[in-house]
Amino acid sequence: MNINGIAHRSIWLSKNGIDVEIIDQTLLPHRYEVVKLTCLEDASKAIANMQVRGAPLIGVTAAYGIYLAMREEASVDFLNHAYEQLLSTRPTAVNLKWALDKMMSGLLRLDAKLRVEESLMIAESLSIEETVNCKNIGLHGAGLIKDIADAKNGETVNILTHCNAGWLATVDWGTALAPIYAAFDAGTSVHVWVDETRPRNQGASLTAWELSSHGIENTLIVDNAGGHLMQHGMVDLCIVGSDRTTATGDVCNKIGTYLKALAALDNNIPFYVALPSSTIDWTIRDGVSQIPIEQRDPKEVTDILGLDDEGMLRSISLVAQGQVASNYGFDVTPSRLVSGLITERGVCMASEEGLLDFYPEKKLV
Amino acid sequence: MNINGIAHRSIWLSKNGIDVEIIDQTLLPHRYEVVKLTCLEDASKAIANMQVRGAPLIGVTAAYGIYLAMREEASVDFLNHAYEQLLSTRPTAVNLKWALDKMMSGLLRLDAKLRVEESLMIAESLSIEETVNCKNIGLHGAGLIKDIADAKNGETVNILTHCNAGWLATVDWGTALAPIYAAFDAGTSVHVWVDETRPRNQGASLTAWELSSHGIENTLIVDNAGGHLMQHGMVDLCIVGSDRTTATGDVCNKIGTYLKALAALDNNIPFYVALPSSTIDWTIRDGVSQIPIEQRDPKEVTDILGLDDEGMLRSISLVAQGQVASNYGFDVTPSRLVSGLITERGVCMASEEGLLDFYPEKKLV
Repeated sequence: MNINGIAHRSIWLSKNGIDVEIIDQTLLPHRYEVVKLTCLEDASKAIANMQVRGAPLIGVTAAYGIYLAMREEASVDFLNHAYEQLLSTRPTAVNLKWALDKMMSGLLRLDAKLRVEESLMIAESLSIEETVNCKNIGLHGAGLIKDIADAKNGETVNILTHCNAGWLATVDWGTALAPIYAAFDAGTSVHVWVDETRPRNQGASLTAWELSSHGIENTLIVDNAGGHLMQHGMVDLCIVGSDRTTATGDVCNKIGTYLKALAALDNNIPFYVALPSSTIDWTIRDGVSQIPIEQRDPKEVTDILGLDDEGMLRSISLVAQGQVASNYGFDVTPSRLVSGLITERGVCMASEEGLLDFYPEKKLV
Repeated sequence: MNINGIAHRSIWLSKNGIDVEIIDQTLLPHRYEVVKLTCLEDASKAIANMQVRGAPLIGVTAAYGIYLAMREEASVDFLNHAYEQLLSTRPTAVNLKWALDKMMSGLLRLDAKLRVEESLMIAESLSIEETVNCKNIGLHGAGLIKDIADAKNGETVNILTHCNAGWLATVDWGTALAPIYAAFDAGTSVHVWVDETRPRNQGASLTAWELSSHGIENTLIVDNAGGHLMQHGMVDLCIVGSDRTTATGDVCNKIGTYLKALAALDNNIPFYVALPSSTIDWTIRDGVSQIPIEQRDPKEVTDILGLDDEGMLRSISLVAQGQVASNYGFDVTPSRLVSGLITERGVCMASEEGLLDFYPEKKLV
């Protein structure tokens, strides 16, 4: 998507054709800084420290991480080591395992001397696959937005989103934001309520910045505000992303998503989840009991980063010394609260039947 | 309640017997600073700038504000002026009007020369009345906590609260926190999940500090986390306060309360609202359509205050320059989501019948 009219992606091969480059998303929106990844360690840290985040981008970065590892040493031992190290960076998003498994199945059977070139090729093709998937999610979801716009006689459609499931969370287009970009680009009038998404404020720092950079009207709100807006008819539609989706349509997404889904249901507002099939974990059926929820450093709750009066990036503490805090990264929205899933193959019901209709090949799993 | 073993209140008459003193709550938990109020202007600003906040404390501060105004000029004109000025400081909490009306009805009929002394007397008696009410709320609510503790064979009771409805929001004891203090003081084992309560973080800066200062175990969480905790059996009970309660039991409280009530219902967890009858607006029957919701400066969303590495209080910006934000201060939780109201007269159903049973004198209104 565009930043000031110039197209960008979230991860790409360096001009030298060897290294991999990303945007350090921990510094946005205050600073746009490109970081070069040259080895396995760089890729692992970029994921763990959330310089890259978002389920699809985590997967693609891990794929490139295997490529960078193969450049260091193309042995089976090091390939296995790289797999385990990258897999352990974040526990919740299933795209990580999906991408790593694709790399392994492509590389293990090869001669060591072919692994560098092949690993880059698979990583690049995964990156392209996810981009195409996101673009298709956008086209399918834009239809939903257009329908609401038509029902409102062309008045602006107000969409609420949580966290960042935009192009920064994928390679391009995004998942939850892809339909918004596609609708906007097709001339539908849209306005987005952006949940700031504590504790790491991906809404405030990434989604709001993304949308504004592309020219889409948006208003930042605290995570507490969505219910009030829905009670007062100020939200027409919710769209969020997913870090892991069960075979039955339960959705694990950034902490707080479940609360918005409850409010949407209570106010009869459609609540859609946009996801490429790489986030579907076909092996599990109950999200609340089966999806591991990452717990991160409580400092992400007690301290916060921003720009001071002099334009310096600075972290400040929000609490008294010694304050205990806890920091769960995700929650699960049961499928009964989800109006539908926007996938790269179309919009389906959030249920086993709905998913299998679109992914019949999974009936064999 | 105690700070390091020493009893404190949130508002009191200065040692000189003339001025009024408050704690500047905008600086907590980083600094404990006492501010002297000497005139109408001081009291109005303290309420508008949220140096004092919380429905009961807003009411009592306004009462003292009338007293301070009478010290300046005890005419009917100035009394009316003071009434209007104080009433306009904040729109949502109904205690403000309740306290101001009590002052007016006591003062208007008096000779001007008696007004200073009488206004102080009424303000002091309101302050005592609210303290006694809160203490009784504590005793009634502690029974609910004790019952849960007994059902858990004495295991720790996990209580979730939103915003600050502690002694800092009242004069002493608090509303939502009063039952927790009373239960703790009576030997029940309690642990409190404290919603940080964006945008002004009254949970992080006031509730967590209050509870810790009194020795009660508590864990700070982001506002997004409560639903996840409830899904996983980590919350036994929710208790929140109220800024305005309708005659039918709808509850207006800090923005985000409604979302927690929805999650409590979805997980079959009791959701109680603690309130002195001064927060009941007997003139209205539908909270969502009839209670005015304050909109505050968007800067409260885009910027945040905290302590930097060098121990300096500092405000930082969380967003890109020019970011649009909106800042609704409260939301309404419909009575259908409320398990009961903890009032100074006991625990009643959140309904017209429930309230009128306890306040039969209001049947005449």
